Amino acid sequence: MIGRTHYCGEISEKLIGERVELKGWAQTRRDLGQVIFVDLRDRTGIVQIVANPEISAEALEKMDTVRSEYVLDVKGTVVKRDEETYNEKIPTGTVEVQVDEMAILNNSKPLPFQVDGETDVSEDVRLRYRYLDLRRPEMRETFKLRHKTTKLIRDFLDENDFLDIETPMLTKSTPEGARDYLVPSRVHRGEFYALPQSPQLFKQLLMVSGFEKYFQIVRCFRDEDLRADRQPEFTQVDIEASFMDKEDFLSMMEEMMKKIMKEVHGLNIPAPFPRLTYEEAMNRYGSDKPDTRFGMELVELSDIVKDSDFKVFANAVKNGGIVKGLNVKGVANEMSRKEIDDLADFVAVYGAKGLAWLKVEEESLKGPIAKFFSEEETAEIRKALDAQAGDLLFFGADKKQIVYDAMGALRLKFGKDLGLIDHSKFNFLWVTEFPLMEYDEDADRYTAMHHPFTSPIREDIPKLEGNPEEVRAEAYDLVLNGYELGGGSQRIYERELQEKMFKALGFSEEEAREQFGFLLDAFEYGTPPHGGIALGLDRLIMLLAGRNNLRDTIAFPKTASASCLLTKAPGEVSSSQLDELNLEIVKFEEEE
Amino acid sequence: MIGRTHYCGEISEKLIGERVELKGWAQTRRDLGQVIFVDLRDRTGIVQIVANPEISAEALEKMDTVRSEYVLDVKGTVVKRDEETYNEKIPTGTVEVQVDEMAILNNSKPLPFQVDGETDVSEDVRLRYRYLDLRRPEMRETFKLRHKTTKLIRDFLDENDFLDIETPMLTKSTPEGARDYLVPSRVHRGEFYALPQSPQLFKQLLMVSGFEKYFQIVRCFRDEDLRADRQPEFTQVDIEASFMDKEDFLSMMEEMMKKIMKEVHGLNIPAPFPRLTYEEAMNRYGSDKPDTRFGMELVELSDIVKDSDFKVFANAVKNGGIVKGLNVKGVANEMSRKEIDDLADFVAVYGAKGLAWLKVEEESLKGPIAKFFSEEETAEIRKALDAQAGDLLFFGADKKQIVYDAMGALRLKFGKDLGLIDHSKFNFLWVTEFPLMEYDEDADRYTAMHHPFTSPIREDIPKLEGNPEEVRAEAYDLVLNGYELGGGSQRIYERELQEKMFKALGFSEEEAREQFGFLLDAFEYGTPPHGGIALGLDRLIMLLAGRNNLRDTIAFPKTASASCLLTKAPGEVSSSQLDELNLEIVKFEEEE
Repeated sequence: MIGRTHYCGEISEKLIGERVELKGWAQTRRDLGQVIFVDLRDRTGIVQIVANPEISAEALEKMDTVRSEYVLDVKGTVVKRDEETYNEKIPTGTVEVQVDEMAILNNSKPLPFQVDGETDVSEDVRLRYRYLDLRRPEMRETFKLRHKTTKLIRDFLDENDFLDIETPMLTKSTPEGARDYLVPSRVHRGEFYALPQSPQLFKQLLMVSGFEKYFQIVRCFRDEDLRADRQPEFTQVDIEASFMDKEDFLSMMEEMMKKIMKEVHGLNIPAPFPRLTYEEAMNRYGSDKPDTRFGMELVELSDIVKDSDFKVFANAVKNGGIVKGLNVKGVANEMSRKEIDDLADFVAVYGAKGLAWLKVEEESLKGPIAKFFSEEETAEIRKALDAQAGDLLFFGADKKQIVYDAMGALRLKFGKDLGLIDHSKFNFLWVTEFPLMEYDEDADRYTAMHHPFTSPIREDIPKLEGNPEEVRAEAYDLVLNGYELGGGSQRIYERELQEKMFKALGFSEEEAREQFGFLLDAFEYGTPPHGGIALGLDRLIMLLAGRNNLRDTIAFPKTASASCLLTKAPGEVSSSQLDELNLEIVKFEEEE
Repeated sequence: MIGRTHYCGEISEKLIGERVELKGWAQTRRDLGQVIFVDLRDRTGIVQIVANPEISAEALEKMDTVRSEYVLDVKGTVVKRDEETYNEKIPTGTVEVQVDEMAILNNSKPLPFQVDGETDVSEDVRLRYRYLDLRRPEMRETFKLRHKTTKLIRDFLDENDFLDIETPMLTKSTPEGARDYLVPSRVHRGEFYALPQSPQLFKQLLMVSGFEKYFQIVRCFRDEDLRADRQPEFTQVDIEASFMDKEDFLSMMEEMMKKIMKEVHGLNIPAPFPRLTYEEAMNRYGSDKPDTRFGMELVELSDIVKDSDFKVFANAVKNGGIVKGLNVKGVANEMSRKEIDDLADFVAVYGAKGLAWLKVEEESLKGPIAKFFSEEETAEIRKALDAQAGDLLFFGADKKQIVYDAMGALRLKFGKDLGLIDHSKFNFLWVTEFPLMEYDEDADRYTAMHHPFTSPIREDIPKLEGNPEEVRAEAYDLVLNGYELGGGSQRIYERELQEKMFKALGFSEEEAREQFGFLLDAFEYGTPPHGGIALGLDRLIMLLAGRNNLRDTIAFPKTASASCLLTKAPGEVSSSQLDELNLEIVKFEEEE
């Protein structure tokens, strides 16, 4: 302890009678005539300090000038409070410090909003005065948790022989993947660096170098249109290992998560984590990042309804699609017709052209589409969905992906709206066996679902040439409570397999060289088997801290339009700066 | 240990008789007919493996196909070598592993250069094949040392209550300081982010937020013309603390350095570190980052020669300059006249218009300028410089800064050339009491030597208005062996003092607001006293690892023209990428 004898949060009954020196901010001030109480706050918490003429007239006089958020240096004696004045809201509430000496280190203007708890000012105001917003206890605790978690991760990886190695921020733009942030070069005029979307290529090169075990907690960048849970710059826990098989790697990651949960929340989470194949996850939850904190799984109905008179269902199946049902228990009489109809708009966002539904009664199913089903079909639907009187059944019928997306989102919506989610749960799971490629209709070719260096599952390699869409990847996503925490894979390290892969992706040899030349070169010089994962740190912290918003986990975040409201970045630059870069801003019509 | 039973470097006589599994690279292969020896290398070191028909014909057959840098998975038994075949160059040299089972995990083309030790290929080739260069033991050990040192720093700061908090990479361009790297915004067309030169403003904002103790190991960027010891992106250990006074802060930093030296090199370095004021450092060493591993200090001669007949000296002093002497012991008869004359070119780089010299003989000083000095002056020069027969004396006479720069560089040159430097020494020291401002002749105003938030030394505050050039800063540089490891200061936290400072710097209120508005706003809401430091991590690692080149401490560095020879960054981007940014490359004449 330097510059003070104690932190405010450390003052306790054990210190009664001791003289202490504290430094911090005056959070609130209560003036009872000849006695002034101030709640003094520092990083650790709050303690009440008190000035009165019997202790020190001089200190009282100074205290009288103190206003909210003044910065104080006080010396005084710890005393027990009268029992009737105990403050149970703070851990130091049974004691106070009688101030006999004090200095006002700095003053403060009145704050634009209170910083003693959750605030209801708009997020824009909070971001504009971020330095004040960060004084609120919720924010302070989130960043302490972030520090602690990061430290745990670093320590764990260090103990497991991983080396922290930094990779470049000024790197090369690649045509694949999301949009790069570009950085014009002044020395090489007309050329650009790109900020990394991930250190993927560099970490694979480090495996070629023989470092064997690498990690980095690293900033990554994507110039995408932002959603609530995206930031243009985000932090990734990037890990890669040579000579480790998938099982060993996954169990090591489980150990790391167990350690974090134990140290941060005191929870013993069970391992090995459950695993779902991609196919199973989509089938049961309509999502490759299922929230398994509640049930209400999607139910496959294609076979039951494929010959029904309801053409929407029958045709969906005929055209290669599927029909899925969702049983929302006991809400049939809670929801108005309008509320039900509004859900059609909700699923429309996911491409669904409508949302069929049925109310379950003792003997029958009721609703506009009930009449289309035979008695047998009705019975089978009831059985498959375990329907009981009062339940409300929803149906999605379309191409697979649309049904998954729409019904998966509907399931989540009901899970939240009906309070089915146990927020004390941390449900980790692995999703495995992702498709290696997906067909890109625009480009009229297959594209890698992760990236072209992801290894196929060995037994599927023969299908690379004839049925590439059936090839599963040796890839794994780590999912927590419905969020993708990160994704990893074993990588291709054999030249022959890599060539097959590029061929399946429709790359000519020249195209492959042009895009990945230096990595392909590297792979010819003794590349070890390797694989790894990238975890989203911001998202992990958000879930650990129980926040709803990625921005609450980032000290100085950007808004949905990628602006910093505090520093007003981005901003204009001088024409001489642009001249040096040989750049000119093209005239454009102002749209906003 | 996963995927193998041991690392290569762990094989020792203790394991004799045990069956082990190793994975790694075939470094060298010696074929003695029916016996094949391979030096197997992994991250930890090398062990000899041997295949012969008595152990396994199949393993021998496979081993026969192994070439340099093939990736192997071998199983076998540890045995003692015959004493006459001990290899003393490697720690595992008394044992070998008799291979009974092996798999070739990957093959390798012949390498463009050897990776078993120091290499003499050009640095360009090393950088182009960086993934191979990093296989060399020197490089591997440097990055292990970097990992270890970074971990030590993080652990130390964590134990001292510092919180690791990340600050933005996409921030705002500021007119002060070095040239920014710019990042065009796609959403805000015509506007730009800047990559941070340091998180200075953000870390001060975090102090306003009440985090009290912050650190970050963070990438910073400067688009400057590169020198041997500069990189466009570099890593900084960034530290800031509230409520700590300077002495406490410096001794904490000393503790950190002591810990690093102890853990990395097993050295107990003495603390507190010596301190030199800026003035003393310049006077004695001609440098604000003196290398004190050898003496040969500059000697003040202005008073002695100010009335001499040698007009160059006398006029220098009359015009407000100084005369400094340097005694290079015992080399008078070693250096030719040409060698001595060539030194005039050496100091010319620093602005010196010539380099006067004198050879010391038993009774007299000899040389072209000897005749200008009276007997008394000659005696005083001899005495001041402690001159003895055989010494060679050099003299600088000019404006202060030119004399410092030229004679300081000359001192260093002789220190190196004459082998006066003890390379086992780690001489840490603080340089303090820097001038707060320096006069910028171009701008015709004072500019802050560090930045405008550096606090003046309290007792000098009254001089801010009349004699700003005499005001000393509460700033401190940490110097190691002639390199600046980092610089820090106590910051201004009182509004009134900040206003005085801006006034002394010739800022109008509006200008100050425009450039530093959000920070000045923040400072009005209860800013604690605070200060901090930024250490150059790359440079620290370079010195700890005994390397001569910053690039050897960075996994994927850039060349002096800010290119990455491996990835070919920067590069051209597509016109659609530029269109999205509303940018156009201005036509330019190709100069290169």
